[in-house]
Amino acid sequence: MIRDERFALKGNIIYAADREKLTICEQSWLVCEDQKIEGVYQELPERFRELPKMDYGDRILIPGLVDLHIHAPQYAFRGMGMDLELLDWLDAHTFPEEARYENLSYAKRAYQIFADHLRAGATTRACVFATIHRESTILLMDLLEKAGLNAMVGKVNMDRNSPNRLRETAKESEQETIQWIKEVQARGYQNVRPILTPRFIPSCTDDLMHALKSIQVSYDLPVQSHLSENPGEVAWVQELCPQAEFYGDAYDRLGLFGRDCKTIMAHCVYSGDREIERIKENGVFIAHCPESNINLSSGVAPVRRFLNEGLRVGLGSDVAAGSTSNLFYAMACAIRASKMRWRLQDDSEKCLTIPEVFYLATKGGGAFWGNTGSFEKGYEADIVVLDDQRLVCPNKLDVRQRLERIIYLADEREVYAKFAAGKQIF
Amino acid sequence: MIRDERFALKGNIIYAADREKLTICEQSWLVCEDQKIEGVYQELPERFRELPKMDYGDRILIPGLVDLHIHAPQYAFRGMGMDLELLDWLDAHTFPEEARYENLSYAKRAYQIFADHLRAGATTRACVFATIHRESTILLMDLLEKAGLNAMVGKVNMDRNSPNRLRETAKESEQETIQWIKEVQARGYQNVRPILTPRFIPSCTDDLMHALKSIQVSYDLPVQSHLSENPGEVAWVQELCPQAEFYGDAYDRLGLFGRDCKTIMAHCVYSGDREIERIKENGVFIAHCPESNINLSSGVAPVRRFLNEGLRVGLGSDVAAGSTSNLFYAMACAIRASKMRWRLQDDSEKCLTIPEVFYLATKGGGAFWGNTGSFEKGYEADIVVLDDQRLVCPNKLDVRQRLERIIYLADEREVYAKFAAGKQIF
Repeated sequence: MIRDERFALKGNIIYAADREKLTICEQSWLVCEDQKIEGVYQELPERFRELPKMDYGDRILIPGLVDLHIHAPQYAFRGMGMDLELLDWLDAHTFPEEARYENLSYAKRAYQIFADHLRAGATTRACVFATIHRESTILLMDLLEKAGLNAMVGKVNMDRNSPNRLRETAKESEQETIQWIKEVQARGYQNVRPILTPRFIPSCTDDLMHALKSIQVSYDLPVQSHLSENPGEVAWVQELCPQAEFYGDAYDRLGLFGRDCKTIMAHCVYSGDREIERIKENGVFIAHCPESNINLSSGVAPVRRFLNEGLRVGLGSDVAAGSTSNLFYAMACAIRASKMRWRLQDDSEKCLTIPEVFYLATKGGGAFWGNTGSFEKGYEADIVVLDDQRLVCPNKLDVRQRLERIIYLADEREVYAKFAAGKQIF
Repeated sequence: MIRDERFALKGNIIYAADREKLTICEQSWLVCEDQKIEGVYQELPERFRELPKMDYGDRILIPGLVDLHIHAPQYAFRGMGMDLELLDWLDAHTFPEEARYENLSYAKRAYQIFADHLRAGATTRACVFATIHRESTILLMDLLEKAGLNAMVGKVNMDRNSPNRLRETAKESEQETIQWIKEVQARGYQNVRPILTPRFIPSCTDDLMHALKSIQVSYDLPVQSHLSENPGEVAWVQELCPQAEFYGDAYDRLGLFGRDCKTIMAHCVYSGDREIERIKENGVFIAHCPESNINLSSGVAPVRRFLNEGLRVGLGSDVAAGSTSNLFYAMACAIRASKMRWRLQDDSEKCLTIPEVFYLATKGGGAFWGNTGSFEKGYEADIVVLDDQRLVCPNKLDVRQRLERIIYLADEREVYAKFAAGKQIF
């Protein structure tokens, strides 16, 4: 284990500085200092010769993967109950499970599993939904902090259209949120930060949203929510907010849609022209969650268009509408979903490529943290070392082919070592 | 290890006698004799009390899974090169790899990996494409026999529209096929059998097909091939066989499409009304390969319609257009593909359910062997014991929920023990 501020790692280095091209440096050195990437070198320069070094041999080094959208309490029912569409699925599976997190001992058991699994995989950063419960949300943050993961975690806000046990009043929700933020501040986490998390328009009254906007401004917090995932949901929002031009406009009128407020919106499967334009204008991040969108029969987001228009896009596993937190799987799903969109819906939009999905899962989502998700100089030193021996092949593969195979076939078994913000997790 | 002809296994037993319903017998006994299922009992009857017994505790026992379509030589490049559609993909990736199997030492190295991985997973039966090479096809059969798997394996036939190194003359192809069958007969395999394997219409002249039909009749062999996978392929077949009413009719005119000749056709994504009717009339089996059909941007087969019309359908992994031989994954993909078809193409066709995909992967495909893929009395004793401890959950799940989670999340790590035709493999 490396415990120094400066170190050098050797292996086959891959990153995507832009979305069209992988940068591959075989048998090269990655130098890190002060939690940042200092540089990539074919030969280790003289001035770094004394650094602590680790030679990972033929293994592959990639930036840590970034999950822009995952629900920690839903991890308990991953791989189950996906025979419904969004709104029915929330009622039948999600809300009953989330209600359990009022119980701290249950939350501890369940969140420990979540934190252990996230730690074991290739994810170094994640934007995480908890539940409405302040105490168990803090417990989750403690566990993620201890796991060394750079997570933004949100206590969920809901004051309408949800079962009694998961419904706060606007006032309670506001007070609990403020208390949660204060408690988080007092804890002095190094890795974990709070993010405001109104579940989505249907579960939040305007009163609550106004209160959250004040909190957002007072504490300068980022925001995460859901947008245009499912046709039934989109129609419902239209009913609930007749004055809004489109779903995203309902958030924007409340000041919770980018601009001065750093925002991630998950899904955007049904974002139309005006919504896409607003997302772009306001600098909102999109969490593309392809597996979830397939499992809940939502559809396939127009990611090619997002990319063409220069929108900010990353990937989300969206457990438990996505079955796994494995972001390699999310990358493969993003390619597959784009192929189904091309074949069945719109053949003017080219399918996603390997470099593109790798970019989305690293630098694309990493941008929400700033300079994260790449091995360019000054980027956060989030590094995953992959050992792909299990994926045995009778032929000699080049490093690019090995990455492609990792995207389709790897899971936590391939994660050999992992660093987040310059600290080795294992 | 059980080495007896008669034995009893205890655990949580699941099978699908019909496609709408899982039969679940918790903490029950599965009695096998003479390689067949004798029965399932809540309490072990007196007359079986002296049998060798194994209590698998809380583990789950399911019928061995059946892969109706997999290409052994393509296993080498699984998870790579899926950025092309079928015909270009064959030229760019498949044919160059298949040409290598002329070299026996390469074939041995590559096929050993394939056989080891198939053995480790939940598959007990498979219909396997090899290459045109007689010797390496026999080597593959030796390895699968040794692995204890019940495979039907085909030396591929191709005498047109393929690269020189993979093109036989019709005469050579006929002679090699006859010699291959004779050599196979001489080997006296217990588990492995030959299946005639004309690659598909575009690679086989009528002369070759007529010769194969004579061989089929002389040796009473089953047949496997490809049908209506991709629009470009379908159009090409129409050009090549202007006299055929539809793609499947081209096979049928040659006597290689069901009726007296047991046939599996992989894909059927673009089968129209008349083709579906002929498939039904002739009793042709369909190998539904959902992952492959997505990866090669082919589309989604109308499986709901196949089932409604009572067609015989099983699942195929179709490695390497499918990335994995894991049939749990193929089941989950079949559900997902049906959801995309429902959402993007035809919302009159209901999505596939968990019992349905489980049925397809067991009894549906198993029917190609006769009474296989179920725990009804007289069925072949193909049994897989699953240990799902790794898929840890904070809640107590019932056996049905555990199966659902296995379908979405399991791989070879969950396969704890495995029997094919009454013989324990591990």
